[in-house]
Amino acid sequence: MSQTVVQSAEALMVRAIQLAERGLYTTMPNPRVGCVITNAEGTIVGEGWHRRAGEPHAEIEALRDAGEGARGATVYVTLEPCSHTGRTGPCAEALVDAGVARVIYGMQDPNPKVGGTGLQRLRDAGIEVEGPVLEEKCRALNPGFIKRMTLGLPLVRSKSAMSLDGRTAMASGESKWVSGPAARADVQRLRARSCAIVTGVETVRRDNPNLNVRAGEMSLESLVAEQAAEVQPLRVIVDSQLRTPAKAFILQGDAPTLVCTTERAAAERRERLERAGAEVLVLPQDKEGRVDLLAVLKELAKRQCNEVLVESGATLAGEFLYRGHVDELIVYLAPKILGSTARPLFELPIERMGSMLPITVTDMRAVGHDWRITATTDIER
Amino acid sequence: MSQTVVQSAEALMVRAIQLAERGLYTTMPNPRVGCVITNAEGTIVGEGWHRRAGEPHAEIEALRDAGEGARGATVYVTLEPCSHTGRTGPCAEALVDAGVARVIYGMQDPNPKVGGTGLQRLRDAGIEVEGPVLEEKCRALNPGFIKRMTLGLPLVRSKSAMSLDGRTAMASGESKWVSGPAARADVQRLRARSCAIVTGVETVRRDNPNLNVRAGEMSLESLVAEQAAEVQPLRVIVDSQLRTPAKAFILQGDAPTLVCTTERAAAERRERLERAGAEVLVLPQDKEGRVDLLAVLKELAKRQCNEVLVESGATLAGEFLYRGHVDELIVYLAPKILGSTARPLFELPIERMGSMLPITVTDMRAVGHDWRITATTDIER
Repeated sequence: MSQTVVQSAEALMVRAIQLAERGLYTTMPNPRVGCVITNAEGTIVGEGWHRRAGEPHAEIEALRDAGEGARGATVYVTLEPCSHTGRTGPCAEALVDAGVARVIYGMQDPNPKVGGTGLQRLRDAGIEVEGPVLEEKCRALNPGFIKRMTLGLPLVRSKSAMSLDGRTAMASGESKWVSGPAARADVQRLRARSCAIVTGVETVRRDNPNLNVRAGEMSLESLVAEQAAEVQPLRVIVDSQLRTPAKAFILQGDAPTLVCTTERAAAERRERLERAGAEVLVLPQDKEGRVDLLAVLKELAKRQCNEVLVESGATLAGEFLYRGHVDELIVYLAPKILGSTARPLFELPIERMGSMLPITVTDMRAVGHDWRITATTDIER
Repeated sequence: MSQTVVQSAEALMVRAIQLAERGLYTTMPNPRVGCVITNAEGTIVGEGWHRRAGEPHAEIEALRDAGEGARGATVYVTLEPCSHTGRTGPCAEALVDAGVARVIYGMQDPNPKVGGTGLQRLRDAGIEVEGPVLEEKCRALNPGFIKRMTLGLPLVRSKSAMSLDGRTAMASGESKWVSGPAARADVQRLRARSCAIVTGVETVRRDNPNLNVRAGEMSLESLVAEQAAEVQPLRVIVDSQLRTPAKAFILQGDAPTLVCTTERAAAERRERLERAGAEVLVLPQDKEGRVDLLAVLKELAKRQCNEVLVESGATLAGEFLYRGHVDELIVYLAPKILGSTARPLFELPIERMGSMLPITVTDMRAVGHDWRITATTDIER
């Protein structure tokens, strides 16, 4: 009798999730998906994951890896196989053609227009279909993709760095103190998984950031970091009056830059920024004459942005929060006290808030000498 | 052959430390001390810990527990045995009389006047003496006692509660929101291990707190909680002009209350507070005419206070911090955002700070729905 360790469906789905995570920085705008194929004895005969848009889906990679071993096999896949012909053929069809016997899925396709059709195609071909298995973990792979498919909006993360007493910079504006190298590498990885980085014109004028992904600063093995940096997020400036300097770093480099403005902005400023390489987009304005943030997010969803990172000062971050647009707060707490005249974390006057905003802290961990607090907002959507 | 598990000196000292911790809330002004006695086979034959001032020291308890078994035994004690005759006889003498062969100690007596004399007495009697063992852990039992013995000042903890964005209360002053029941129980335990709770007159006037230890709110087993509540910390109000209302809750109850003031305070106010049961003490004032905080701490050390808890508003807490008097910061972070017009954590204008204050976060953990951050200040002493 051979010693075959039969793994549970959960254990094999965990393996599929691990494979999916390899696409964390590169699959955009597609979801991260992993796939494992086992034979009748429960031995893994094929594995695959989606690497980047235009390349094969996870199931196709795993079928190729399994070869003839796929016949009669069981397939574990984190997301329902697609039934439509995109840049690659439909995966459901490929699974039928390969003669697999059983498909265990992690979550259904979140797109309400196609959800379930891939599973139905499999069932129609006589394949046994089971799931969802480890649905919550599978959903956690693609929070932005799921939100875009279901609500037509990207997932919004707001990133800030503060002192123990909730301050972001000295009153003078000096803010180079913020966080240590481990936290900065963590921010690089946050950027790399995002489809767009949003900032405000004030931050551009004051700090002149690049807001790009730099392979050498991610603290990842070099191949992974280089592949991540190949997929640069769109840089977005919220700039009602087009006060972005034409020589700002954010307009330079390989990554594209979108400047969202209002019709109040002067035409000659627009031309100057376009000559500097930026795309300028006029969007609706809110009552105060500023760029409507919901319009920005809708535009980013239209451009297939799944996860959006807001890296801005207290004013724009506070505005995103006040408008209820923030899904996740990431706050780096540096071991310092800056005092009560230093700048606040969020510019959120209480008169506007009405009352305090409840949040849920979902994770708190040391990142070098700093601490990272992850929280979700408890706003009704 | 009997199955005797010989435990290492470290393991037995860990046991002695656990015994010492049983005195966390009750030994004041004495240190928390634990003692384990083992026979030649390494089997524990006696255990003891110091319960409260006036009652036997840990070594005496352990000797009583061991009885004749102490002869030729090894003694593990977290603190050097005393050589002086206090309210109980000298422990070094008792160990000699009991005929123990060996004493392993955790740390030397921190009092520079007596440190080492207990050990010397043992050596003079032919007892083998070894140590320090697990010195850092043994020191951690008595941070306040050690500081008082070495510097003539109590250990100062500052306790605050804040929102994620570093705010303590709404601009209106409304602060009942702060922290949940688990954090409040944690504060009760912090109070119970302290010899004094220091607050400011503004907090007394605004929040009218009791600042006492309440057995029912400690989330400890009832016997431990009741014994803890029997040793109420001294309540201290910093009140330059004696504006404390005579009917304030803090003047009521079993615990004593000390009001520290300056000569600026009117005599009739003093008499009114004394009639209400408070002790009023005139202390030197600082340049701004406020009570000199160093004088307060020296007075508390004189009264044998080991650990002092500052539970005050942002102004007094900021002043303690600015003056370099805070050893440990305890901040409860509640999962809420209060906005930028809410009250700051510490009233610390940057002009006075000169620059930011570095701290070291030593612990961060969930306490119910809140998070507790423990940090030490990196101030030179």
